[in-house]
Amino acid sequence: TFSEAKLAEASPKLLFRQLFEKESSTYTYLLADVGHPDKPALLVDPVDSTVERDLKLVKELGLKLTYALNTHCHADHVTGTGLIKGKVPGVKSVISKASTAKADLHVEAGDKIFFGNLFLEVRATPGHTVGCVTYVTGDGPDQPQPRMAFTGDTLLIRGCGRTDFQGGSSQLLYKSVHSQIFTLPKDTFIYPAHDYKGFTVSTVGEETQFNPRLTKDEQTFQGIMENLNLPYPKKMDIAVPANLVCGLQDLVNNV
Amino acid sequence: TFSEAKLAEASPKLLFRQLFEKESSTYTYLLADVGHPDKPALLVDPVDSTVERDLKLVKELGLKLTYALNTHCHADHVTGTGLIKGKVPGVKSVISKASTAKADLHVEAGDKIFFGNLFLEVRATPGHTVGCVTYVTGDGPDQPQPRMAFTGDTLLIRGCGRTDFQGGSSQLLYKSVHSQIFTLPKDTFIYPAHDYKGFTVSTVGEETQFNPRLTKDEQTFQGIMENLNLPYPKKMDIAVPANLVCGLQDLVNNV
Ligand SMILES: [Fe+2]
Ligand SMILES: [Fe+2]
Repeated sequence: TFSEAKLAEASPKLLFRQLFEKESSTYTYLLADVGHPDKPALLVDPVDSTVERDLKLVKELGLKLTYALNTHCHADHVTGTGLIKGKVPGVKSVISKASTAKADLHVEAGDKIFFGNLFLEVRATPGHTVGCVTYVTGDGPDQPQPRMAFTGDTLLIRGCGRTDFQGGSSQLLYKSVHSQIFTLPKDTFIYPAHDYKGFTVSTVGEETQFNPRLTKDEQTFQGIMENLNLPYPKKMDIAVPANLVCGLQDLVNNV
Repeated sequence: TFSEAKLAEASPKLLFRQLFEKESSTYTYLLADVGHPDKPALLVDPVDSTVERDLKLVKELGLKLTYALNTHCHADHVTGTGLIKGKVPGVKSVISKASTAKADLHVEAGDKIFFGNLFLEVRATPGHTVGCVTYVTGDGPDQPQPRMAFTGDTLLIRGCGRTDFQGGSSQLLYKSVHSQIFTLPKDTFIYPAHDYKGFTVSTVGEETQFNPRLTKDEQTFQGIMENLNLPYPKKMDIAVPANLVCGLQDLVNNV
């Protein structure tokens, strides 16, 4: 019948791609609702050096890129959002309000970012930086199951982001992970912004059991984080200022 | 009722993980039937240097590793099958009969490799080497949908394996891809043994449209393959002899 056909047409269908940038070991994620006639799509954490690859794929798959999101203001690579906005008119950059970075849209906890009939829900997960958020696929009958959490540097596979700069706080990170991520269903997929050992995905259930840092009590965790003795990130002095104007890099370049 | 409970217990459920080895840009795949009480698992194309990572993950997930498969006798890295057999008693190494490599099990086109109630089907896809096979998840109501094809070096994302050594033949590779892989349903996922650009997955539909080599006619394809002028693989003289005894490396080491 007509109404059934219309329903079938409107039924969302997730296309999902994980993409890797080798130099900074960054994962970029492409999500689209290919059940929608426009095939609206978004990218999470695009990297400047792989924008061409990502946009070629978007074009081949016939997607309409609408948003370029960042989980936070990165210190290890320059975001691709500025380049993308220059190359694909109409794309809106998205970052948290708390990041203090420029973007077309500033999001806060509880906001929903729709692409077609699918959406990402914003969870505030400060700790690695003050403005870190985790984007989680929607909860609902038509949304992907299991859910997927794009955790940025907040929760990594068997690890977590450092907390020693950019307003980092091990106390906040611990609270964020336990209250905002570990409370998701156990089968929720964890898709981080980085992996250095070749892992591509984990689950909430796995990290609550096997994360060597976040399974510890809060005090032990803080001790671990205070004694990491990590080097100053090579790209930080270039990346952070660029990423603070992340949706609008072109303005800086043209000054 | 009892029979319903039994049915539910027997219903297969795929656990799937893609794992990356940076030096040779190799993908290893972990598949398990976590619907089965034993959680039987297999690894496709394990690499010697990442065996420890892979086995730790297998252990954490509570899986029972039963097979370690190779898609072919690799020239760019040493297979992990020998190490795995030494560390996990009972694991059987698997490779094609046509590879002439040693293994516990030699497979041929049409063979099925069961893990729990899931299985991989063997397709002969010679061309990169004479013994290359593609492992495809089963066709059936209880098997994963869309299907997944582990294509080794036969079909890469927007590319294919070289055909200039190890009994390689561009004519055979072209025929293999078109008759054995491009005939699968369009939504079948392509999981290759390597990617050098950060792609993690493609589909049959995508490659039939966008593969820059295999969308060409056979003659053009052969011309492309004859003019690649690729360097001799760095690890070939170590990797190939080791991989020819792939399930039984320990024998060589102990001589
Ligand atoms: Fe970061
Ligand atoms: Fe190969």
